[in-house]
Amino acid sequence: MRSAVQFHFDFSSPYGYLASEKIEALAARHDRAVDWRPMLLGVAFKTTGSQPLTLIPLKGAYTKHDVPRSARFHGVPFNMPAKFPIATQAPARIVLWQRARDPGDCATLVKALYRAYFVANRDISDPDVAADVAAEAGASREGARAAIDDPAIKDALRRDVDAAIAQGVFGSPFIFVDGEPFWGIDRFEQIERWLAHGGF
Amino acid sequence: MRSAVQFHFDFSSPYGYLASEKIEALAARHDRAVDWRPMLLGVAFKTTGSQPLTLIPLKGAYTKHDVPRSARFHGVPFNMPAKFPIATQAPARIVLWQRARDPGDCATLVKALYRAYFVANRDISDPDVAADVAAEAGASREGARAAIDDPAIKDALRRDVDAAIAQGVFGSPFIFVDGEPFWGIDRFEQIERWLAHGGF
Repeated sequence: MRSAVQFHFDFSSPYGYLASEKIEALAARHDRAVDWRPMLLGVAFKTTGSQPLTLIPLKGAYTKHDVPRSARFHGVPFNMPAKFPIATQAPARIVLWQRARDPGDCATLVKALYRAYFVANRDISDPDVAADVAAEAGASREGARAAIDDPAIKDALRRDVDAAIAQGVFGSPFIFVDGEPFWGIDRFEQIERWLAHGGF
Repeated sequence: MRSAVQFHFDFSSPYGYLASEKIEALAARHDRAVDWRPMLLGVAFKTTGSQPLTLIPLKGAYTKHDVPRSARFHGVPFNMPAKFPIATQAPARIVLWQRARDPGDCATLVKALYRAYFVANRDISDPDVAADVAAEAGASREGARAAIDDPAIKDALRRDVDAAIAQGVFGSPFIFVDGEPFWGIDRFEQIERWLAHGGF
């Protein structure tokens, strides 16, 4: 198997969620795994001067219309959460904890956390809720809950976020295929062609 | 023929240019014409707090890479102009002048102006250059040049831009199909399905 497709995402990003439901099948069609990279968009927004899409005049109203429409288009269940956006340190740290234990087994956890927020309207910014969801996805609840307050994991997340921004990540989802950057689920067609032909 | 697809665009928008090369065939597959609506993104940016993509940290570098890649993906010729972004009142006013004379015959003019800028590196913000291009596309050079300084056409463009923003337009290209809004060439797949099924 060739190098994994790097999938950078923020747990508060609705387009990141939609893409998380599609990226594995896309990668698998080209014999690739997915390297799940949680990041904190708020840190990137300090560099780009951006803010959560839904808060921007005009663009916010469009986004609230486009996200559920895009979910229908892609056949992905979606319910806009009551609380949005949320801080995503808690679920991101759980994923980092899981990655340290078994980097090949993050997909179930990531998708469970994303669905808890964007389908079941559960507030995964709450450490106890995030740990509950991790437990339902098969992880140790105690381990997941402790990871959220673990200074080493906090540091690791900070380093990952800084590294992602240094790599050029400014949105979610943000995908790298052999170093080639693609922003958004809107680029999945290009990613598909890139994976098939090694460029275009 | 059913109602035309409304295509809002700014002449300084590279994604608007790429989309301008694709929208007619898309609309025609569903027995629709294209209603070409030049707008001034700078005015919308005052509402959204945005700015030209290439000037934004991180996003700018990505955009400069993504635009030529997207042009290759869509099979559209593209050369990044030496002067970017540009003010687009001159070409926009020529299109409004043409629309007032024959609303069904704007495509040739729009595409000639866009190609002059994004393929031939001609500065269409210059009224004389814009009028030259219009003449090459079959319009009266004198009429096109005079339109740029015509107070009635200046007013008409201001009204059009305000109306577009009131309609929710904040980017380029921005397309309406029977009132349904779609932002970006990235939404062409969704537009295609919407046109085929009247929604989804």
